[in-house]
Amino acid sequence: MKKSILSGMRPTGKLHLGNYFGALQNWVLLQNEGYDCHFFVADWHAITTKHDETGGIRENSIAMVKDWLAAGLDPDKSTIFVQSLVKQHAELFTILAMITPVGWLERCPTYKEQKEQLGESKTANYGFLGYPVLQAADILMYDPDFVPVGEDQLPHLEITREIARRFNFLYGETFKEPQAKLTEVPKLPGTDGRKMSKSYGNVIDLCEGSDELWQKTRMMVTDPARVRKTDPGDPKLCSVFDFHKLFSPQEQRDEVCAGCTGATIGCMDCKKMLFANLDSFIAPMRERRAAISDQAALDIMHQGSLRAAAVAEAHMKRVRSHMSLEI
Amino acid sequence: MKKSILSGMRPTGKLHLGNYFGALQNWVLLQNEGYDCHFFVADWHAITTKHDETGGIRENSIAMVKDWLAAGLDPDKSTIFVQSLVKQHAELFTILAMITPVGWLERCPTYKEQKEQLGESKTANYGFLGYPVLQAADILMYDPDFVPVGEDQLPHLEITREIARRFNFLYGETFKEPQAKLTEVPKLPGTDGRKMSKSYGNVIDLCEGSDELWQKTRMMVTDPARVRKTDPGDPKLCSVFDFHKLFSPQEQRDEVCAGCTGATIGCMDCKKMLFANLDSFIAPMRERRAAISDQAALDIMHQGSLRAAAVAEAHMKRVRSHMSLEI
Repeated sequence: MKKSILSGMRPTGKLHLGNYFGALQNWVLLQNEGYDCHFFVADWHAITTKHDETGGIRENSIAMVKDWLAAGLDPDKSTIFVQSLVKQHAELFTILAMITPVGWLERCPTYKEQKEQLGESKTANYGFLGYPVLQAADILMYDPDFVPVGEDQLPHLEITREIARRFNFLYGETFKEPQAKLTEVPKLPGTDGRKMSKSYGNVIDLCEGSDELWQKTRMMVTDPARVRKTDPGDPKLCSVFDFHKLFSPQEQRDEVCAGCTGATIGCMDCKKMLFANLDSFIAPMRERRAAISDQAALDIMHQGSLRAAAVAEAHMKRVRSHMSLEI
Repeated sequence: MKKSILSGMRPTGKLHLGNYFGALQNWVLLQNEGYDCHFFVADWHAITTKHDETGGIRENSIAMVKDWLAAGLDPDKSTIFVQSLVKQHAELFTILAMITPVGWLERCPTYKEQKEQLGESKTANYGFLGYPVLQAADILMYDPDFVPVGEDQLPHLEITREIARRFNFLYGETFKEPQAKLTEVPKLPGTDGRKMSKSYGNVIDLCEGSDELWQKTRMMVTDPARVRKTDPGDPKLCSVFDFHKLFSPQEQRDEVCAGCTGATIGCMDCKKMLFANLDSFIAPMRERRAAISDQAALDIMHQGSLRAAAVAEAHMKRVRSHMSLEI
């Protein structure tokens, strides 16, 4: 039988290259390797920390799914769905809430971290405390073999596995304990050298337009010690070079590296070379995205959600029956 | 427009006279006064403190609904439904969780009380902490004008009202703030003089069989100082007299009171009079109950749940739209 994969993203709107290399590229790979894949828009999760900014959820969900499709997710191969359209997620959340000790949630390392980072007003709610429970419901619903995660999400997956174990212990074997599939994330800084993040305003969109892409490339931060072309630079201190490592062939990387350290090419030449490579990397995705209307994306989301709901309902029947919760 | 009422009970199985006078009698009255009534089996709530005893939920739900019908609830007048069959309750719980501060729940007086009473193992779970949120979802879903409650449940209703206010403030006017309708509960001790409660084994079932009823009446605790018929007794210290006050006409009450204090009638005579009155009070309910098959009760629960789900879905459309959670 095909091994299965489940993963989701909060609807943040258009994705950037950091999102692509952090997760999406891997999703496409897994899909094309033949895994049975479920990928979902975690719109209820978006409310856990942003209950006062729900206005953009619809638009952001559509924009994000268009990027998924542009990157190569294929609704004929993967089930692409929206969490809030599959009500069984809320039902399983409600049920798993009844068997999850508050202590497990309070001890979750990201809970305290995020409380500090985001402040009390965004993290004081009961739903925020319980989001690992909602996440467990999202995952266990589809009995996946693997969940692609970054290192930082391992504690959450561990809670999911603990909840699965506890449920199986209380009501009999029902859920598979999903395994982590660690995603290797290459280094890709933002245009200012810091971590690429919307909140820093330093992102390159996955389907960035050519003109904007050149403007952003042109403004990228380089080795600050290299003021003139005649100053030798250090590629290790240059974010443009981090990009070359991902987007340029070895030969060109060697060329810009030598030209920089030997002060034989200017930063603008180096950026032009990067731009050409970046642009040809982005171009096919940009074209695919332009061909997808909002309505087409919505149709895919709705159809995928129906498919997901059928899988979810079949599984919930087992859950209810094992708990004798069938009336 | 007809004023509306919402109330529910956990599926505890057969009801006893304490449950009847504590709530059910009042439900029947409200129904017959023409309120638009929703009454539900709170089966998800039953898991908050009894996740390790879910086995009896189905059977207990059926038994309880049969008692509701026996007592006079009429599925043509009231919507009788099962919480877990109306998935919108879980959806609204999930959503309200996102806007309810954990502090409101921790400060809820019943939270600490129950933690002490029931012990850590039954109250450590996330779902137990959040059961006022689930309750708020149950209530707000139907926009009732009134919720019949006992004094002890006022703090819960207050949380429901606070959650409604907060939602309305964040997303615009959506929920009515339901008012409490205080239920006056007459004093009705168990057969041993303590509070009537299944856990004390001192209950008289709502539809108790005649023989059992006599056995239980015969064994009821009386004034302990009255050992022989010739000892004068004090009706104020006698639980049989508490029953007379509810089930016997004034004339008979005066008669047993005089006979007891004057030592002219024995406790057994007094109990025989009570039994006759109790039995004729119970008989019509017992007969109605015997005429209802499990399947008939199940059909009523299923049909009522469909009706409730239609109301709930219409309301959830508004909720989702106000939050811009429509995809």
